[in-house]
Amino acid sequence: MALAPRWKSALAKAIEKDGKAAVFQLASIDSATNTPRVRSHIHREFISAQATPSLPILVTTTDIRTPKAAQILSNPTIETVFWVEANQEQYRIIGNASVIPTPLHPYHAQFDPFRGPALTALEREGIDWEAKRTQIFDSMSGHMKASWCRPPPGIKLEGGYEEAKKWPQKLPTFSDVESEEDKNILELALSNFALVVIDPFEVDFVELGIVPNQRTKFTRQEGNWVEEIVVP
Amino acid sequence: MALAPRWKSALAKAIEKDGKAAVFQLASIDSATNTPRVRSHIHREFISAQATPSLPILVTTTDIRTPKAAQILSNPTIETVFWVEANQEQYRIIGNASVIPTPLHPYHAQFDPFRGPALTALEREGIDWEAKRTQIFDSMSGHMKASWCRPPPGIKLEGGYEEAKKWPQKLPTFSDVESEEDKNILELALSNFALVVIDPFEVDFVELGIVPNQRTKFTRQEGNWVEEIVVP
Repeated sequence: MALAPRWKSALAKAIEKDGKAAVFQLASIDSATNTPRVRSHIHREFISAQATPSLPILVTTTDIRTPKAAQILSNPTIETVFWVEANQEQYRIIGNASVIPTPLHPYHAQFDPFRGPALTALEREGIDWEAKRTQIFDSMSGHMKASWCRPPPGIKLEGGYEEAKKWPQKLPTFSDVESEEDKNILELALSNFALVVIDPFEVDFVELGIVPNQRTKFTRQEGNWVEEIVVP
Repeated sequence: MALAPRWKSALAKAIEKDGKAAVFQLASIDSATNTPRVRSHIHREFISAQATPSLPILVTTTDIRTPKAAQILSNPTIETVFWVEANQEQYRIIGNASVIPTPLHPYHAQFDPFRGPALTALEREGIDWEAKRTQIFDSMSGHMKASWCRPPPGIKLEGGYEEAKKWPQKLPTFSDVESEEDKNILELALSNFALVVIDPFEVDFVELGIVPNQRTKFTRQEGNWVEEIVVP
């Protein structure tokens, strides 16, 4: 059975060694204006089906109310880039992205669980996305969780920062909830929280920490990755 | 006279404090496939015309043979993102990009020095882009300079890394050239070296290092920047 691809092992190791390497940038297209958009994200985990360890999916999270959710729905091919300062490594990962909100959100009907082969394999093994979404949400810091019960990100902040001081700054975990009010706020935050999963099909891995520099292009073919050495 | 915008002062200060903050990501669109592309870049400097200190241009560099040069020519609206780990700040900068290669390169004819107001102001003050290009090239490390005399980036590396070991690993500055051969290699590298200049018109500045978090949207209007406080 095919093993995890070399780019995935290297990236996972870099993130394990230094949490700062988990920050990456995700680029999408705003179709309305035909402009590229890009913002920083935090990588949460790799998942792969037991049947296809060579096909890892990248999991990150978002607020379902941000423009990128609509952008990804309208054009699911995205590119992400990880710059690992400590190793002088760059990983550019092109893939199909899917947004997975609460099943109650209208966007949920547009989630295609068979968009790519890795997603399809996970679906066949019966992955419970709603359980995964809740688990990742609950594992986040109280401060992060509080960010999903604010007004929609990017809209004008009526009342300025004085208004912002009134927002909850920290939410508990579900097991630590003590009041009905806390529970409602937590449910509100969870209702705005969505997973973004990326099923990669091309990876450009540049290693600038070694001389001569190395660069490898990985292309997914029939459940395996073909490597080509290219000019850095 | 309008001063430099607050986002520019904050970003310049962050980069001055920690060189790692100069690494940013530049997103463009590959029109042929309608996919977003993104890769890491190094910010080289801000330039602004004396008449318009409120309109800074960002200068970075590239190899004119990379796909992004053609992508920017075909769709000059780009977005860049700086993530400043130390301050937990994110700067998303949307602007018009221009590619400035040697005047001998066919792409040079497509350089529009009046694409944006900052570029126009610099042009009116007689900026010498070829002198700027040569000066920035010469200020780079010998190792970086050597990267521009390799075969075109991204093509298959015939002969593998054994072949790469034969490439020059380091080039001198122009003033340290000792042989005709060195001079020719340096000229070759310079012929592949191009500036990428970005004339920003919208900046999204998020400050996650302060509580409550702050987020400001800056929009360029008539040579000034209008600030709006938005929800982080």
